[in-house]
Amino acid sequence: MSSSDPIRCAERLELVALGDLPIVQPGDDLPALVCDALDRNGVRLDSGRDAIVITSKVLSRAEDRFVDLTSVTVSPRAQELAAQTHKDARLVQLILEEASAVSRTAPGVIIVRHRLGFVSANAGIDESNVRGTYVESASTATPADARGHGPWVLLLPRDPDGSARAIRNAIRTRFAADVGVVISDSFGRPFRLGTVGAAIGVAGLPPLWDQRGALDLHGRTLQHTITALADQVAAAADLVAGQGDEGRPVVVVRGLRYTPDDDANAGALVRAPDQDLYA
Amino acid sequence: MSSSDPIRCAERLELVALGDLPIVQPGDDLPALVCDALDRNGVRLDSGRDAIVITSKVLSRAEDRFVDLTSVTVSPRAQELAAQTHKDARLVQLILEEASAVSRTAPGVIIVRHRLGFVSANAGIDESNVRGTYVESASTATPADARGHGPWVLLLPRDPDGSARAIRNAIRTRFAADVGVVISDSFGRPFRLGTVGAAIGVAGLPPLWDQRGALDLHGRTLQHTITALADQVAAAADLVAGQGDEGRPVVVVRGLRYTPDDDANAGALVRAPDQDLYA
Repeated sequence: MSSSDPIRCAERLELVALGDLPIVQPGDDLPALVCDALDRNGVRLDSGRDAIVITSKVLSRAEDRFVDLTSVTVSPRAQELAAQTHKDARLVQLILEEASAVSRTAPGVIIVRHRLGFVSANAGIDESNVRGTYVESASTATPADARGHGPWVLLLPRDPDGSARAIRNAIRTRFAADVGVVISDSFGRPFRLGTVGAAIGVAGLPPLWDQRGALDLHGRTLQHTITALADQVAAAADLVAGQGDEGRPVVVVRGLRYTPDDDANAGALVRAPDQDLYA
Repeated sequence: MSSSDPIRCAERLELVALGDLPIVQPGDDLPALVCDALDRNGVRLDSGRDAIVITSKVLSRAEDRFVDLTSVTVSPRAQELAAQTHKDARLVQLILEEASAVSRTAPGVIIVRHRLGFVSANAGIDESNVRGTYVESASTATPADARGHGPWVLLLPRDPDGSARAIRNAIRTRFAADVGVVISDSFGRPFRLGTVGAAIGVAGLPPLWDQRGALDLHGRTLQHTITALADQVAAAADLVAGQGDEGRPVVVVRGLRYTPDDDANAGALVRAPDQDLYA
């Protein structure tokens, strides 16, 4: 495997969701929790073969990215956009604070360019807990619960690439294996319905797989074949990670073939606005 | 498993690319070839658990969707668009014939709504053989080779949903197993770089997985959680199907959990233009 051909196609891939991660609490050491779960499950990791996919939500929880909507001060611009979109003005305020630009709005929809670079609906803010308050869920009380009545929402992690690197390093230290780490989130899409997993943080795993130099079956150079490797790994992992009461936020992907890349980052997956015909 | 909860999340998924499919030739009976390959590989299929993903390219080959560019009559509109985009006017003509509407154009890029409903670059026409002619590749001569010097391109299949159904039926007859079938193609994306596998034909497998009624970890109703199941299965399969000289166009996905759906079709994944903020 030469450095100019850092990835080869797997023939067999296995995805396993770790079932016994505790519910992550603000302040938790997520790299240690992930390593502990790998340990408990007896997972043996192969460098340059395996990758770990972690849903952004647990990273957000560990970073205490909860925001109590009653604590939000609404700007005139957020007020105006909330009226246009029929959304909670406090949520709109947070979306604007998380965004570098607004892409599209419609009733019920605000699509922005997130400060992390990618384009997503609602700046990736998780509202699934808006309907209740954390203090009501006594069985899963979190430090955030003690601080007020919400409703609460959950922002995306501060630095998913950095967190992916920290998890990669922790795994390398604990298991002497160099495996890629992907922080995933669910993205809606223009043109197509339904969400798909996508990578918002990457370490070690080459985010793009450039097959342009490869030959096709007839010995001619292939065109248009830069694959979004990290996004496809995130989408595959979403099939086993699930959501809600079946959520299993850590997925081991086994059987890839790649040369670990210290410079990998999720920004490489973002199309620059001036190259985007739909910006 | 009730009919109102037709899909449960897998905990473990396995993807295996069948390695020994012969190069598909125009006129080949693809359902029979797929069944033969499953047979040779000793694959035992589980109803409602497994799915088969097939890249559209082999379906196009079986349907003889090759077009010799020298045979194409170029319209004034294609001529004009070719001048604007610096593309081969004959290819542009075919793109327009395959499209119901043009979405965006730029130098080197024509994005259209395909007659099959989805939005894609170049109407999904495969140009990877444009640079040579089929007659040159003696080792893999096809019936198309004998008919002229090209250059040749390959259009998408005529009716991927219908072909998926035919393959599902052939598998059901041969193996007494009811498994979903996905016809996949590689799609570029607005906002993000790199291609991902997506479903352009579906049979049996529910294309969308609606988790809206499910409860989150705190017992509240989940929002925004309709997953593009068939697209994620296609993206996962792309990780092992590969392209070019490593291409393995038939992938078995094992370990899903779904109730087979006779009404499944890939159109369910397409956002209607009037619901699309980027149309």
